[in-house]
Formats: sequence, C-alpha cells, structure tokens
Amino acid sequence: MTTGALDALLAELQFDADGLVPAIAQQHDTGEVLMLAWMNRDSLRETLAGGRVVYWSRSRRALWRKGDTSGQVQHLRELRIDCDGDALLLLVDQVGVACHTGRRNCFYRAVRDGALAVIAEVEVPAEELYGKG
Amino acid sequence: MTTGALDALLAELQFDADGLVPAIAQQHDTGEVLMLAWMNRDSLRETLAGGRVVYWSRSRRALWRKGDTSGQVQHLRELRIDCDGDALLLLVDQVGVACHTGRRNCFYRAVRDGALAVIAEVEVPAEELYGKG
Repeated sequence: MTTGALDALLAELQFDADGLVPAIAQQHDTGEVLMLAWMNRDSLRETLAGGRVVYWSRSRRALWRKGDTSGQVQHLRELRIDCDGDALLLLVDQVGVACHTGRRNCFYRAVRDGALAVIAEVEVPAEELYGKG
Repeated sequence: MTTGALDALLAELQFDADGLVPAIAQQHDTGEVLMLAWMNRDSLRETLAGGRVVYWSRSRRALWRKGDTSGQVQHLRELRIDCDGDALLLLVDQVGVACHTGRRNCFYRAVRDGALAVIAEVEVPAEELYGKG
C-alpha cells in the first residue's frame, strides 16, 4: 500500500478522542468472531505494512503485536471499514487460539436459560501460552 | 431473565466512561458480521427483555430501537460477552438489510489492490428505508 493510499484510508476513519477505533477480528474462512480490540494510526500502518495484526493495548498504552508472547499471531487476509468509518473488520487467519484464556475466541460466555453460561472449553492451558512465570 | 440474573450480567461488564460498551451484531446462521454499535445499561435491559435489539445512539444521545424507522429490526438469538467483559457479541436475525446505506452489512469497503474499494451493492434504496423526506 502506498503512503498516499494509506493516508486516504486513514482520512476515511473516525478515530475517537484517544485516537482509537474498535477492530473486530473474524476468522476469514469460518466466520467465527474471535475478539474485539483497538487500533490507532500506528497499529493500522504496521498491520497493513507487515500483514500481521498489531493492536493498541489500552491497558499497557503500547502497541500490541498480537502473538509476540504467546505465538498466537493473526495474519491479515483483508481489512474492511464500516459505513461511518468508525469500526474496522479484520478478516484474519488466527494461529492457534485468539483468547488469552486459551479458548479459540473471547466470546465464550453467553446468556442461556436466563443466566450467563460458559459455552467454550479451554483448548490451550494459559501456562503453555505465556510460560510459567 | 430475572432482575438478579440481569444485575449479575451487568456486573460482569466493563462500561466505558460514557457508560457504553461496543456490540458486534452477527447474523446467527451465516456468520456475517453486520455492524458494530454501542449499548448502555438501559439498551441492554430492553434488548434482553424484549428480544429485539436496542442500541444507544451516540450521535442522537438516545436509545436507538433499530428498525423503528426503517423496519430493519434485529431479533436477538443469543447475547455473548468477551473475556474482559468490555465487548458484546449479538447473534441476531436481521430483517432486511443492516446498513443505513441499504447494504446488507456496514463493512462494504475493503482494502484491495492497495486501495479502498466498495465490495457490496446497495440492496434497498435509502428512500425505501427512510421515506422520501
């Protein structure tokens, strides 16, 4: 992507007061919604340049190159923006599991029979993802 | 859902400084991501009570009972929350199109061949959705 094209894309986006826009990660072939995270201009630039998804961590206030620690990287297949330019949809190929709990996706709790229920199992123990300390 | 169960659900959620949490709407049977919007506690209560999705409109600063004007309502099939409790995934049955542009979903622009391209057609003209003025 040329600098001009990237600037044109950024100009279409409505970043919030913190310079962020929410990004939905969806597994490109199954349609599974994996997670929602946040991007700023720098993370978007790096993601489009490198093809590997980089978010902005609001808690750490730093670029979050997903998978650096856990190995669970996301390869970008396509980036889409919505009608208002205030949300991103990332079609990705997720290596391993997306969620830090070791589940395939982060949306593993659902309202069922009038109460919150856990609907997905841990596939990879957290100590395998992040080491033992 | 009982008041107690609803309170338990609300206690699991991390609303932002404006009392909002982002909500992804996904067509329950096809996996299509339709849109991203925002909910506050009242919109969540009304959605769970009535089974029809109600958002919070940040621009109008009011409850947004999606489809009131256009008829394009969303029937809730399941509500899920993510690991951090700061994002919702709504599995819905969308009546008609989700996007105010008349497209099936809001993510109709994608980066392709290094530039932003429109990848979905208008299915319903806007004047059919919102009248002629």
